[in-house]
Amino acid sequence: MTTNHLQKSALQDLRFLIMNKHTVSVGNIKIGGSNPVVIQTMTNSLTPDIKETVNQIIELYNEGAEIVRVTVNDIESAKSIPIIKNQLIQKQYNVPIVGDFHFNGHKLLDSVPDCAVALDKYRINPGNVGNLKNYDRNFTKFIEIACKYNKPVRIGVNWGSLDQNLLKDMMDSNLKLENPLPNSELIKNALIRSCIQSEKQAIDIGLSKNKIILSCKVSNVNLLIDIYKKLDKLSNCPLHIGLTEAGVGEFALVSSSIAIGYLLKQKIGNTIRVSLTPEKKGSRKQEVKIAKHIIQSIGLKNYTPSVNSCPGCGRTSNTYFQELAKEVQLFVDQSITSWKKEYIGIENLKIAVMGCVVNGPGESKHADIGISLPGNGEAPVAPVFIDGQHFKTLKGETISLDFIEIINSYIKKNYKQTTF
Amino acid sequence: MTTNHLQKSALQDLRFLIMNKHTVSVGNIKIGGSNPVVIQTMTNSLTPDIKETVNQIIELYNEGAEIVRVTVNDIESAKSIPIIKNQLIQKQYNVPIVGDFHFNGHKLLDSVPDCAVALDKYRINPGNVGNLKNYDRNFTKFIEIACKYNKPVRIGVNWGSLDQNLLKDMMDSNLKLENPLPNSELIKNALIRSCIQSEKQAIDIGLSKNKIILSCKVSNVNLLIDIYKKLDKLSNCPLHIGLTEAGVGEFALVSSSIAIGYLLKQKIGNTIRVSLTPEKKGSRKQEVKIAKHIIQSIGLKNYTPSVNSCPGCGRTSNTYFQELAKEVQLFVDQSITSWKKEYIGIENLKIAVMGCVVNGPGESKHADIGISLPGNGEAPVAPVFIDGQHFKTLKGETISLDFIEIINSYIKKNYKQTTF
Repeated sequence: MTTNHLQKSALQDLRFLIMNKHTVSVGNIKIGGSNPVVIQTMTNSLTPDIKETVNQIIELYNEGAEIVRVTVNDIESAKSIPIIKNQLIQKQYNVPIVGDFHFNGHKLLDSVPDCAVALDKYRINPGNVGNLKNYDRNFTKFIEIACKYNKPVRIGVNWGSLDQNLLKDMMDSNLKLENPLPNSELIKNALIRSCIQSEKQAIDIGLSKNKIILSCKVSNVNLLIDIYKKLDKLSNCPLHIGLTEAGVGEFALVSSSIAIGYLLKQKIGNTIRVSLTPEKKGSRKQEVKIAKHIIQSIGLKNYTPSVNSCPGCGRTSNTYFQELAKEVQLFVDQSITSWKKEYIGIENLKIAVMGCVVNGPGESKHADIGISLPGNGEAPVAPVFIDGQHFKTLKGETISLDFIEIINSYIKKNYKQTTF
Repeated sequence: MTTNHLQKSALQDLRFLIMNKHTVSVGNIKIGGSNPVVIQTMTNSLTPDIKETVNQIIELYNEGAEIVRVTVNDIESAKSIPIIKNQLIQKQYNVPIVGDFHFNGHKLLDSVPDCAVALDKYRINPGNVGNLKNYDRNFTKFIEIACKYNKPVRIGVNWGSLDQNLLKDMMDSNLKLENPLPNSELIKNALIRSCIQSEKQAIDIGLSKNKIILSCKVSNVNLLIDIYKKLDKLSNCPLHIGLTEAGVGEFALVSSSIAIGYLLKQKIGNTIRVSLTPEKKGSRKQEVKIAKHIIQSIGLKNYTPSVNSCPGCGRTSNTYFQELAKEVQLFVDQSITSWKKEYIGIENLKIAVMGCVVNGPGESKHADIGISLPGNGEAPVAPVFIDGQHFKTLKGETISLDFIEIINSYIKKNYKQTTF
């Protein structure tokens, strides 16, 4: 290795170490750079059902989605986009809308310029752009339209629709190796290469680096983490992360939390989507709620006051404690929207509800307001702690109401009111 | 630094690098070493309610808890333990039982030798052992009893009940420093020191190293991860991990998943407990279910076939897909207990239910059995893939039943039957 090579390689290492992600603007939202992680989700209405689509977007936005994606799979959907965007603007909802394109995105954007103008970002899936002959032409046309309208693009690779030509080429080359890679490793490499090659191709066509976001989704937690760790080193485009096809119920919730939580804790990921199969006709708001829980639980941002409670055990035989924990959580959930309008920083409040004297007083002291309830056989009194100091001891039938009253007073006293 | 010091320090570093955890036997379950992660949980019955406690232990064991902990907080509880253990043995449930002691453990174990004999492990909380004067005496007595009956001990520190004398001493020393540590850092250090000092003290009293398990729980995800990373380097006792006082509902579920999932992925933790505040009179089985989800989602062990499904979008307007995903999940949930009795390795089966042709065929191919349902406007046919190959295309009203029938045939054909 020549000195020059060594220097270059050292520089390259350094580049990795100091690599920051570009900032990409999607409407009024900034993704990457030093910006906080952005929550996004997707509608599941038929896009041409304009009333339902607008309602869903507003519902998701109100829940905390900062960007909303909609399917644009045919001419009707494309023609609906400018109408949807207009209605949102008229209702004063300035939420960026992303068009999700597959197979025919280049045609739809070309045929319906108002759609191309109205959207704040386009999503292209390199696996669904066309066959070998048409791939370059379709991809180029798609990116040229993004350049023309000055729009950012997410290059969104998905293992459910990996570019088959690329995979075939890589498999052919692999077979010629002395020690061929196992299939799983090959697929991983193909996913990453599809992403990085498409990024390069888009830049070559003329798209600015600060107009590109990358994603590369799979449905396996370990594989997803591996892929994004590599992708993070290979590109300085902001990364959109999420476990795809996570599935139904609590398993999906657990695996999405671990995958996204792990990556964000490793400082990988600039925008997230939690993909959950909703109950029949269920709301997509659930995805946004879980996204907020993930971000809050690793301390990146608070959305709502935290209520810590112990799991209870044989020391806490009376169920009063479980009821109180639930009541306090409900009280917070019901109050947070109005609190946020009234009090600055209210989302940082910490409340503890503890079942007995084993960990109760201590845990309560770590919170802003804590209550430690009588356990089994202990005296029926509940000490309340404020800012780590014993404040008062509650007794009798009204402990729950009294404690909620104390929370209210604490908020009024300690949180600055917003000025309208 | 002398050469001797340098060598010692280098050796110490090496010790950290090659450190493996001891194996601790708790009844018939092994924790640490190269053993798989062990799931445990805790009853919330009144321990002297023998019928209810035995029922809960059996219910938790059947759900997958490999060790169950019960509160032993008074003489009645201590006297109940040998009866509970006997009933379990009579019913042929060989599940290790751990006694959770606070404040008076040394007295209870001393007064009720049958309890000391019947338990498979004792848990001691160094923060709840006694005040300055009595601490050493009580702790010593507790450990001596463990030695006498040859029982393992978990030294379980909790930030809700941190040893106040230790914290006071550390705060006093901290104040004398030129640059005192912030309180949060001091508390973290005090928690870790309480754990490590107690380990050393227990060994000095005579407890064998392979009789000690450590835990150091807090309710904050980032703090928990920091603490366990340090603890993992400082001790080769197996670690019991879990987020304490995680709270109610989905926030608790998300934060427990991230905390435990993150540590396990970093190869930290030998036994886990998920602490969730149950709904009033709710079952503790939920904790065990989530623990299994965490372990399965990071690929450490499969407990049940996986059903991956996409979240659906505007391309999948018909709700038939969501129904099918749910039906398949339900079918798996309802069948798994009998499948496990019949088929070896059935828990490794992978099923995919996809809403449309965008990612459907691809994702289905990554599964053992996959189905890709018609999306909006697509032809009403559903290709089924088996082991990555197109197997058959389903049509009409009976797609759901036909697909479940295909799953049944696949299992019969591909999984070896157990021999009784």
